[in-house]
Amino acid sequence: MRARTPSGVELASGRIPERIVPPAPPPRDDSLESLPVWGFRDTAFQVLPNRSVVLTGGRYPLCGAELPDLVPWMETQIGIAIDPRDVHEPSYPPALPEARSNPAFLEEVRKFLPDGALSSDPEIRLRHGHGHTQEEMYAIKYGMLPRIPDLVVYPAREEDVEALVEAALRHGVCLVPYGGGTNVTDALRCREGEERTIVSVDLGRLNRILWIDTANQMACIEAGAVGRDIAEGLARYGFTVGHEPDSIEFSTLGGWIATHASGMKKNRYGNIEELVLDAHVVTARGTLSRSTAPPRESVGLDARRWIFGSEGTLGIVTRAVVKIFPLPELQRYDAVLFPDFERGVAFLYDLTREGPVPASARLMDNLQFQLGQTLKPRTAGLAALKSRLEKLYVTRLRGFEVDRMTACTLVYEGSHAEVAAQEAVAKRLARRHGGLRAGASNGERGYQLTFGIAYIRDFVMKHWILGESFETSVPWSQAIALCENVKRRVREEHRRRGLPGNPFITCRVTQVYPTGVCIYFYFAIWYKGVEHPSEVYAELERAARDEILRSGGSLSHHHGVGKLRERFLPRVVSPGTLAWRDALKEAADPRDVFGIGNQRTDTRA
Amino acid sequence: MRARTPSGVELASGRIPERIVPPAPPPRDDSLESLPVWGFRDTAFQVLPNRSVVLTGGRYPLCGAELPDLVPWMETQIGIAIDPRDVHEPSYPPALPEARSNPAFLEEVRKFLPDGALSSDPEIRLRHGHGHTQEEMYAIKYGMLPRIPDLVVYPAREEDVEALVEAALRHGVCLVPYGGGTNVTDALRCREGEERTIVSVDLGRLNRILWIDTANQMACIEAGAVGRDIAEGLARYGFTVGHEPDSIEFSTLGGWIATHASGMKKNRYGNIEELVLDAHVVTARGTLSRSTAPPRESVGLDARRWIFGSEGTLGIVTRAVVKIFPLPELQRYDAVLFPDFERGVAFLYDLTREGPVPASARLMDNLQFQLGQTLKPRTAGLAALKSRLEKLYVTRLRGFEVDRMTACTLVYEGSHAEVAAQEAVAKRLARRHGGLRAGASNGERGYQLTFGIAYIRDFVMKHWILGESFETSVPWSQAIALCENVKRRVREEHRRRGLPGNPFITCRVTQVYPTGVCIYFYFAIWYKGVEHPSEVYAELERAARDEILRSGGSLSHHHGVGKLRERFLPRVVSPGTLAWRDALKEAADPRDVFGIGNQRTDTRA
Repeated sequence: MRARTPSGVELASGRIPERIVPPAPPPRDDSLESLPVWGFRDTAFQVLPNRSVVLTGGRYPLCGAELPDLVPWMETQIGIAIDPRDVHEPSYPPALPEARSNPAFLEEVRKFLPDGALSSDPEIRLRHGHGHTQEEMYAIKYGMLPRIPDLVVYPAREEDVEALVEAALRHGVCLVPYGGGTNVTDALRCREGEERTIVSVDLGRLNRILWIDTANQMACIEAGAVGRDIAEGLARYGFTVGHEPDSIEFSTLGGWIATHASGMKKNRYGNIEELVLDAHVVTARGTLSRSTAPPRESVGLDARRWIFGSEGTLGIVTRAVVKIFPLPELQRYDAVLFPDFERGVAFLYDLTREGPVPASARLMDNLQFQLGQTLKPRTAGLAALKSRLEKLYVTRLRGFEVDRMTACTLVYEGSHAEVAAQEAVAKRLARRHGGLRAGASNGERGYQLTFGIAYIRDFVMKHWILGESFETSVPWSQAIALCENVKRRVREEHRRRGLPGNPFITCRVTQVYPTGVCIYFYFAIWYKGVEHPSEVYAELERAARDEILRSGGSLSHHHGVGKLRERFLPRVVSPGTLAWRDALKEAADPRDVFGIGNQRTDTRA
Repeated sequence: MRARTPSGVELASGRIPERIVPPAPPPRDDSLESLPVWGFRDTAFQVLPNRSVVLTGGRYPLCGAELPDLVPWMETQIGIAIDPRDVHEPSYPPALPEARSNPAFLEEVRKFLPDGALSSDPEIRLRHGHGHTQEEMYAIKYGMLPRIPDLVVYPAREEDVEALVEAALRHGVCLVPYGGGTNVTDALRCREGEERTIVSVDLGRLNRILWIDTANQMACIEAGAVGRDIAEGLARYGFTVGHEPDSIEFSTLGGWIATHASGMKKNRYGNIEELVLDAHVVTARGTLSRSTAPPRESVGLDARRWIFGSEGTLGIVTRAVVKIFPLPELQRYDAVLFPDFERGVAFLYDLTREGPVPASARLMDNLQFQLGQTLKPRTAGLAALKSRLEKLYVTRLRGFEVDRMTACTLVYEGSHAEVAAQEAVAKRLARRHGGLRAGASNGERGYQLTFGIAYIRDFVMKHWILGESFETSVPWSQAIALCENVKRRVREEHRRRGLPGNPFITCRVTQVYPTGVCIYFYFAIWYKGVEHPSEVYAELERAARDEILRSGGSLSHHHGVGKLRERFLPRVVSPGTLAWRDALKEAADPRDVFGIGNQRTDTRA
């Protein structure tokens, strides 16, 4: 659908259309989502008796196809025979800690929240006490979480959030904002030492698009709206907010702000901090809000900027005004094969210099390229996969090596002219760097896999493989060395511990900037027979982060800090920065109402 | 000069050039600048006996040319006969308050600062106690400033700044960071109630480009470096930071960050918050710094973001890492005439929708268009000017009305292809909106005038005209109404007070965004015979701001708040925002070392 945007002629004549107020959406159906694993309830990878893998349901292009190559390929990579019948059965739900009640708080809250807006259901409480780190997912399936929220509330109005904060202040309660629960930083994990009643504030009922201003291309959206619903709600009127994190199906606008999120198409639309024009935030010192949302301002100390990256520690975002864009005239996928990762990086580098840069550009390393090939529905086995790759035009005629070649997937987006310009540059630069274009369908498939691949982690966990992703950002000149260093380090640490099989480690460049890139790693280990596998994995992940920091990388490009990476903060910022930050948190929230305790660098539990 | 940037091939091969460390620049020669008026000492407007005006010196294209039309045209506009011999002679320097000394502080500071790094010269102290608001400029010429800094210090190293802050904390001194002194918000004006010794920290000796990283396109620059020196220093290596505020000749990198500045070419390079990758800030709780400057991060509460717009109240920026860009292959000016302002706005609106948007696009209103015409060196008088305009092709053949037509000036910048694309869209849209292209030289002239026009205010002040600029940002749909409302309101207020002559009020659109524009007003009044003219002007300016806010405009697009607009803060942000902000300032700087007191909304003096 194309946007019905006014033209300058209408603007000059004063005939500006009114803001559109879309009908309120139906309440979000949380039952669609799985509690113990990532994603939709109807979607999961399964191994068939013939060792082929299939993704259930019908949500993704990948669904329903038999994938014979995945298991054998994984066996080769990890160096372990996988027996599909040997399943590490989850014992979900785990034993749950007793809820701590705060009767005075509850009494007050019942005055403004209806019965249906409170839940003390144990599994609901559990779900609100974790995100999707391997530690958390392993714990809910094979261990336990020693502390989870004691109560979940579902405010449907901004005033209810304000009243909740006031009640929490009065009665010594700890509040934890909850959006989509998709974080991968332990940001929702409750501290064991938290003695107060912990109340999870689920923003799922604050999910309306309040207005769409087509003339000025902005929309006001409640913080609990989920990415996929925002996309659908705006598309109905011909617009998009353009923010597409990999978690878009489940994560929320408020969560994007709190974690300082990045979207796949940021080259065209910007990252979240560039998209948000204004935000309402309920804090312990009152609500942060403004009278207007001008295009750009210099209004002194600007509280809105402080909320990005606050990860639940400063307040609850209730709504935001965001930029919107007419749906693009055209979207086209592309893929380019390169003989090696280095040449792919060189291609991306020149793309940022000689642009226009496509809406998205991603470069897989060789292992990830191979993984993508195993997710193709073919009837042959591993040998056939290798032979198929060797028969490819590029390997036969161009001398690409099967175990070195890489693929870059691209999304061109915009007007016909913009798409043509993006494509022309990509084509020219691909040639310069020995790349071969592999067609739109390969590019599209690469992007579609993103959402399916998210289900793999929970699938393989049952089969004794513990995996996780982590990311960083780094200047261009250090990018290739960083990838190599991290892979080497992880292999060394794995070997040093005498762990079974080989570690699986692969990376891709997922974002490009003029000054550097975002690099995204997948890392997995075989854990059968390993004692405390989750802790061992965490150790290796910390070693990888150590290596990232040594190699000039950042603590995180878009996942954030949470509790998973807080221990590294003193390595990347000065003591003054930490002191300043602690003083500001103390000032903004002296009673630590927003006590989820992310980014702590002191010795508190 | 073109940049010698590495290509991706070099990157992939590991042959990345080292960072360039440019030689240290000579100490900044402050004697080039005028103390009592804007700009360079050798540059000023003067009236000749024949009532023509001339700009002295040779710095600007305008210099040396006799401008016969300016005075007669101003007389018509203001409705007052100007007698060039009737000069309101400034009594600069005004009486100056005694310096308050703090011997213990002085003793400590002398241990690490050499003699030449301290000044108690009265005129130097005065210059460090004001910016360029009309109130301040009127006060130093015809009144006085009741409180100015007691001492000026010139640290040359970051450690000296840290030591200064420590000494200030120990001895109860108030520190005021000083960059170029170009603010127009009373941001440097000292509060009368400040009892402590006020020490101005002039960053002029922290003016080096520390390194240039050509591979990753970033540079580390000390905060006291002036815009023109940064531009020159980077151009030597083929780069630009692309930030061009109108004050670029005098303002500094640190000042840009503290005021949250905007540059003329932000469409191509971004505003200051988009250009800065990292900053070192010396605060009362230690120095904020980090180990790396990655392209983008999510690292939790991020102190760097809090410094934008802090206007000297939170700390002293000592250096920053900024993005840099290869000098553009091509730069081309353009100008388009429109029959009226409305059609010009419609053109700009469509430009943001159908782009690529040129590096800069500015639209004058009719009065400003006329002003531009009077700054042309012709030998005829006012009648000739009118007749010249009427003889223009556009007025003769196209029916443009001399007192309605407007001009839009454009800067295309980038590769040949980018410039061609920017120009093609501008051409097409100009046609759509009845515009006529007026050629590159008219466009270039429009931009060159920017720097010359800055000298007009101090020139006319001597001739009984008090003028000032102010700006706002506003969504597109409210832009035209805002311009009309402000002009009407100012005229009404002027009339209501029975002030002599007519008010002079004109505006231009100086920045475009997808969601709105920045509008820049010039406003002047004839003040001969007016009691307390500076206060009267300030009243009218506040009325204009009131009207801006009523019309949906922001408190400021890029000038900032300072003390000039702090009274309006409670109208644009919620009480919670103010409480939050005050708590954070208190936490970050409990002893108010950075006590210049901008953005105060409480009742302190």
